[in-house]
Amino acid sequence: MRVLLKGKHKDVDGIWYDGELNIIDQTLLPQKLYFRKLTTAKEVAEAIKSMRVRGAPAIGIAGAYGLAIEAKRKNGNKKAILEAAKLLKGTRPTAVDLANCVDEVMKEETPSKMLDKANEIFERTISACKKIGELGEKLIAPNSTILTHCNAGALATGDWGTALSPIRFAHRAGKSIFVYVDETRPRLQGALTSWELLNEGIPHKVIADNARGYLMRKGEINFAIVGADRVCVRDGSIANKIGTYEVAVLAKENKIPFYVAAPLTTFDKISTEKDVVIEQRSEREVLEIMGKRIFPKGAHAFNPGFDITPKEYITGVICEKGVFKPGELGRLFA
Amino acid sequence: MRVLLKGKHKDVDGIWYDGELNIIDQTLLPQKLYFRKLTTAKEVAEAIKSMRVRGAPAIGIAGAYGLAIEAKRKNGNKKAILEAAKLLKGTRPTAVDLANCVDEVMKEETPSKMLDKANEIFERTISACKKIGELGEKLIAPNSTILTHCNAGALATGDWGTALSPIRFAHRAGKSIFVYVDETRPRLQGALTSWELLNEGIPHKVIADNARGYLMRKGEINFAIVGADRVCVRDGSIANKIGTYEVAVLAKENKIPFYVAAPLTTFDKISTEKDVVIEQRSEREVLEIMGKRIFPKGAHAFNPGFDITPKEYITGVICEKGVFKPGELGRLFA
Repeated sequence: MRVLLKGKHKDVDGIWYDGELNIIDQTLLPQKLYFRKLTTAKEVAEAIKSMRVRGAPAIGIAGAYGLAIEAKRKNGNKKAILEAAKLLKGTRPTAVDLANCVDEVMKEETPSKMLDKANEIFERTISACKKIGELGEKLIAPNSTILTHCNAGALATGDWGTALSPIRFAHRAGKSIFVYVDETRPRLQGALTSWELLNEGIPHKVIADNARGYLMRKGEINFAIVGADRVCVRDGSIANKIGTYEVAVLAKENKIPFYVAAPLTTFDKISTEKDVVIEQRSEREVLEIMGKRIFPKGAHAFNPGFDITPKEYITGVICEKGVFKPGELGRLFA
Repeated sequence: MRVLLKGKHKDVDGIWYDGELNIIDQTLLPQKLYFRKLTTAKEVAEAIKSMRVRGAPAIGIAGAYGLAIEAKRKNGNKKAILEAAKLLKGTRPTAVDLANCVDEVMKEETPSKMLDKANEIFERTISACKKIGELGEKLIAPNSTILTHCNAGALATGDWGTALSPIRFAHRAGKSIFVYVDETRPRLQGALTSWELLNEGIPHKVIADNARGYLMRKGEINFAIVGADRVCVRDGSIANKIGTYEVAVLAKENKIPFYVAAPLTTFDKISTEKDVVIEQRSEREVLEIMGKRIFPKGAHAFNPGFDITPKEYITGVICEKGVFKPGELGRLFA
């Protein structure tokens, strides 16, 4: 992705490995662009847990590298590798990429092959996201006004993004588009999306999550696209950032197409929505903003991190293999 | 309403007149309970504009008193009164109570009669809100889990509240209820609602606006109630705080009754939704929180203060005269 670094445009990824593992620390954005080196599985787990690295595909990549660097550090000690895998997989329960990618690396027999596999997962994810952009771009008509929720951009995937990839491609193809960015309380990942769109010069405005329905009803949004933390192949439901279900219901009510973009690492062939664990996060994420208490002393909050959108609200799922109706995802694995 | 003041429970109103006009400064809540004296129409207008006093019925009362105290201050000078009326009515375009109440006071011929009229509006509003509580309480089954949006409490109406009045009455009647409080970005009026509920000892939790759909779909909300800034009698639509339309759509999708509570001063017999001016507020309300910039430099926001909910989403409108289907409001004025 293109970023502005010391006054110059540079191309960087949200996460990368060049002999050592580095991430853009997303908790410091958009105020500060800071690259953080992660040297152990424990550091990677902390970075995932605290959302320094976030986004289902990006934490899949981080988990894969986390296991590979720990395997190297512990000279292939099986017990240490098993412990690291457990630690990494336990950090975020809802996104399936993490477990998928850690399991994939676990199958390799030597630290060197584990690193090769992590590199392969990284390359594969980025090329999947690029393909999602090429396929998804065709769905975006010129002069579209697009709503997106949370950050499903390059930060969340290494490069390109899932929901943001078709938007990038549409912009680069010269289509005149405008993006409304949900601020996405409580963690305000809309700030990350706005930062990515600013870096690309894509026209957009941020809105409170409460304002998307108003805009939809006024006819000022004609395309909605989000990423996913888990695509359940069996029932066509998707788990994604809290509020996604609201976007989907409002889109359906206003006859606006609602697309989900995700690489195959986000697909879960076994679970249906009933099996998906929704991560319950700290009430402080709601009660405080930037460390300042907003709500009265004695007040409590309920803070689910994700929700489920069932298939009847989803126009299509865009993955690197094509665009599918949520009821037809089984075909991909037949 | 019951508040905790210097360690003791006291009964105060959100706005009152006892020889001088006082308000609870809502911009300082819930961190600080501060009573602010307003001595001129200009000060009242500033307090409305900056949301020190907010909530459609409360700004109606404030506007009425603002005009009466200005009339007294200017010894009944007609030109000064006309100017004050214009200033006050121009502060917030969407809520109709303000214009209704200022116009009502304008009809009186002497400063003394204008003050009597303002007092009458105050008493009438509070007794209407009490009646709304008595009528609305009957709609709330024991063990209800209730969603409310914004603050439609005593702060917004002088005393009792609109949406919060039935909730208060249900709690006082000994019904076991639980309230989910939308935080209501961008201005976070959920903090005011939480403060009122804490003062009354009503069990509740705050949620991000993104989480209400999740709770509804899980069956954990079975009653939704909001206030209104304008009830359009002719088409049954209501204008209320941005996000209300989202609550209503989600409620309908999940077969949850959605009620609107408002005194007759909030009713507009002339307009349909097309005539309602939606106040567009500063983008800084979205881009900054508690004075701190959240979104990247160069980012812009779109910030409508209100939205319209059409009648097909509204189960009933509760006013002091009864509970009506939104299509039947004309009967009230036949």
